[in-house]
Amino acid sequence: MNIPKPIINILRGGVPRAARSSSSKPRIHPDAFQPWTAARRPVHSTSKNSAQAAAVHATEPALPDVPQSSNPQLAFPCLDNVEERTQKLSRRSMSGPEPSYTSGKHETFRSHEPILLDWGGVLPRFDIAYETWGTLNVDKSNAVLLHTGLSASSHAHSTEANPKPGWWEKFIGPGAPLDTNKYFVICTNVLGGCYGSTGPASLDPTSQQPYATSFPILTMHDMVRAQFRLLDNLGITQLYASVGCSMGGMQSLAAGVLDPHRIGRIVSVSGCARSHPYSIAMRHTQRQVLMSDPNWANTRGNYYDRLPPHQGMKLAREIATVTYRSGPEWEKRFGRQRADPSRPPALCPDFLIETYLDHAGEKWCLEYDANSLLYVSKAMDLFDLGKALQEATTERRRQNAGKLQGAMGQAEVPHDSCSLVLPDEPYEEQDSSEDIMASEKPGVAHLDSASEDLVKGMAPMRDTPTLVVGVASDILFPAFQQQEIAETLRKAGNRLVTHVEFGEDRSLFGHDTFLLDLDGVGGEIKKFLG
Amino acid sequence: MNIPKPIINILRGGVPRAARSSSSKPRIHPDAFQPWTAARRPVHSTSKNSAQAAAVHATEPALPDVPQSSNPQLAFPCLDNVEERTQKLSRRSMSGPEPSYTSGKHETFRSHEPILLDWGGVLPRFDIAYETWGTLNVDKSNAVLLHTGLSASSHAHSTEANPKPGWWEKFIGPGAPLDTNKYFVICTNVLGGCYGSTGPASLDPTSQQPYATSFPILTMHDMVRAQFRLLDNLGITQLYASVGCSMGGMQSLAAGVLDPHRIGRIVSVSGCARSHPYSIAMRHTQRQVLMSDPNWANTRGNYYDRLPPHQGMKLAREIATVTYRSGPEWEKRFGRQRADPSRPPALCPDFLIETYLDHAGEKWCLEYDANSLLYVSKAMDLFDLGKALQEATTERRRQNAGKLQGAMGQAEVPHDSCSLVLPDEPYEEQDSSEDIMASEKPGVAHLDSASEDLVKGMAPMRDTPTLVVGVASDILFPAFQQQEIAETLRKAGNRLVTHVEFGEDRSLFGHDTFLLDLDGVGGEIKKFLG
Repeated sequence: MNIPKPIINILRGGVPRAARSSSSKPRIHPDAFQPWTAARRPVHSTSKNSAQAAAVHATEPALPDVPQSSNPQLAFPCLDNVEERTQKLSRRSMSGPEPSYTSGKHETFRSHEPILLDWGGVLPRFDIAYETWGTLNVDKSNAVLLHTGLSASSHAHSTEANPKPGWWEKFIGPGAPLDTNKYFVICTNVLGGCYGSTGPASLDPTSQQPYATSFPILTMHDMVRAQFRLLDNLGITQLYASVGCSMGGMQSLAAGVLDPHRIGRIVSVSGCARSHPYSIAMRHTQRQVLMSDPNWANTRGNYYDRLPPHQGMKLAREIATVTYRSGPEWEKRFGRQRADPSRPPALCPDFLIETYLDHAGEKWCLEYDANSLLYVSKAMDLFDLGKALQEATTERRRQNAGKLQGAMGQAEVPHDSCSLVLPDEPYEEQDSSEDIMASEKPGVAHLDSASEDLVKGMAPMRDTPTLVVGVASDILFPAFQQQEIAETLRKAGNRLVTHVEFGEDRSLFGHDTFLLDLDGVGGEIKKFLG
Repeated sequence: MNIPKPIINILRGGVPRAARSSSSKPRIHPDAFQPWTAARRPVHSTSKNSAQAAAVHATEPALPDVPQSSNPQLAFPCLDNVEERTQKLSRRSMSGPEPSYTSGKHETFRSHEPILLDWGGVLPRFDIAYETWGTLNVDKSNAVLLHTGLSASSHAHSTEANPKPGWWEKFIGPGAPLDTNKYFVICTNVLGGCYGSTGPASLDPTSQQPYATSFPILTMHDMVRAQFRLLDNLGITQLYASVGCSMGGMQSLAAGVLDPHRIGRIVSVSGCARSHPYSIAMRHTQRQVLMSDPNWANTRGNYYDRLPPHQGMKLAREIATVTYRSGPEWEKRFGRQRADPSRPPALCPDFLIETYLDHAGEKWCLEYDANSLLYVSKAMDLFDLGKALQEATTERRRQNAGKLQGAMGQAEVPHDSCSLVLPDEPYEEQDSSEDIMASEKPGVAHLDSASEDLVKGMAPMRDTPTLVVGVASDILFPAFQQQEIAETLRKAGNRLVTHVEFGEDRSLFGHDTFLLDLDGVGGEIKKFLG
């Protein structure tokens, strides 16, 4: 799809300088700025009207100098900016095609066979976008499958077809950690994503409409199954290595459990063996904030022929960004600096850390499909390599196996109701008294019993050489989760586990270290792959 | 104000059982639930229409059994619930008075003198709501001023006038840590709050309208100044102790800096000497989410005669709740339990930790004024006891002193424009390469130089006996911030600092430990106060 460059800039959240004059003006002529005597801002009933009114408002003549309030009305350029974005997107969607997400040219594998998902959903067919670097050797034994983080595309490194730098540009190439002189590196966009693989924005062949929120719930294992289909198609029966960071670490381990004979070695950087409640909580708030955007809520996610939930996406990304970096790095980088100490404080972004978060959200809010975020984020919550869940899933898949036949002929389709699970009674807070302190002796009894389940669940990887890398300043996939992977594998009898933890003396970059620390993270991977 | 009880339940986020039938029904009759064959949900243009349509939708007859999508449409009872809340609030606001926030009966001190705030705002007059326990002795030397957390009222303990348990019920009373046999305990609602003290929801005497977002930016020091006005009125020239937890800890220290001779002892539990970037970031996301609620955004905070931003408040509280408790506690309490493991997963709350957050937000979303949250949260960000900021503030107050005369006669009022501060250029991410790793050697140089500023700033407290309590599992006011307070005071020459840190063996309750650990936190306070 060709989109003119200025439009792409707008899609990417950039606002032309001229359009930003209403917010930047006060910096130049403070005295010309809306004084305390100005009329109260008119009340708008809808966001669209509000944007129009705001535009008019900015050019209204100053009112006579009569005190109307004890103090000046605060200004909210951060909200004006949202309205500008809405206006621009409205104009665009009236005159052109809806946005599509792309990371540029890539290969596509299309499976015409249906795929049964872990929770009973069926995709009658699906695409997997992928890119490769290096050369597959004759016996097809040098393939490295690289798994991505939540929102990344297959574009891990530049290609001839797409020379844009990839998200792991320096980690891939001749002599790099994923050495293309030795390995044939494959990276895919995950199933459920929006960069060329089938996801909620794709057309459902049954309805000929975007799946939207009729897309089925999916899991890490489902994503890996789809990747295995691609490998089958490429004739690759064994991987030299399965490598992934963050969510990719989850997939890397899931591959090892799903088909241990297929995986030569495993690398998991800042991943986990199961999601823990804090990370579920952080992703929950992102999903809730996104689904509360009126553009999402009013359509229940069927926004594809309308305005996307751009503000919800921006907010979700801001929350996510808090979890990607660490307190110590921010202390050092931003401290308590305000963006402009000469101005009085504001309720809109004001401290440098706030403008950083604002920019991170702005940059991303039209770069990724909102429903992909919801489904992939949910799949991360559901990740647990424990034996109990694996057995339940096997049983569920057995019961649902018949659906595949139906889906092949598209005569029969699943009848599950995928619905919210809320208890009849709202969650009750425990008595906030010392009783809790007395009754709940801190300890790890619960964790220990779960660990046994995990040892059994990860036993299939007992013979697979595995590198586990963790970062002490990571709050999203904390170091204790990396220890859990390593210790569980060792308990399962694996004598080929390498566990590396980078302390705060090495990296203050938290979860994002895997994107930044070529020498550290890259060095360990290179050493491990040999 | 009298509100009938069912309305109060609705205001508190409770939804009568009958109204919840659409979401609870599937739990009883799974087969009756909207099948995959149902029509796509109609697209609604506004939230209000959406709510009405949703109500109709729930009673629509089932459509004929023709496959329309490959998989069933997900249900979103969490959004249905928001629409129900909106509908109920709409009916209420058409038929009755707007909501007011109250913690019950309390005393009110009214200052008829104007107050000049640190950033140049002026309140021509103001109220401070307060409650007291115990008896003021003859020489008025046994008063303990208790400062609150962000959203708490003056109701720290039950009174004759208001027998409802207070937020620190067990910490106050005969023989309790704040021993009413010995001390006269005073607790106030902060300036800027909504439980009886003057805040954004109060009428501006100039406009005779709620201040809303023409309320001036305020600081912790401003809140303490207002409290000192109350103490003056009560004839209390010296406090036996200034005690506070969380934001109250900030105020407790601010009191010590503002007027050291007035403060006999200081207790700060899980507070800080200056806000750090991670906590600013977490509060930033809460403010942004709240201000993006259309009920807030479309009125720019002037929502007092309309629907309050209840969903924005709910979301903000959910994010806040993540910061109030800790990962280890949740691991133990919720683990990876799903609310109903027999149901397929959902994008609405699903894991137990999600229903916990959802409930915390729901319970709170109509209990506190949105603008109070914004202003008080901002005041926390602005908190910094460093000397540089104190000097700048002193200079600013000197320049603005003339405004007080104006405000007394209400003839002259301030001319500052309180506006957003956004740089002309959006924030630029640093090059994400190993260059950063090389160029930014991790270290504490920046912190060290700031510490010197902090030592100078906190020097006024060098003779004040101070108890600093921290909790290792606190992520919002981490233990390192408690160490910072203690070490800074010691560096300033204070030999009367007691610093206690509760490890994870003692408390997994994170920031909320101060509300829960009567023996630990309460015990230390009791010992310290003597």
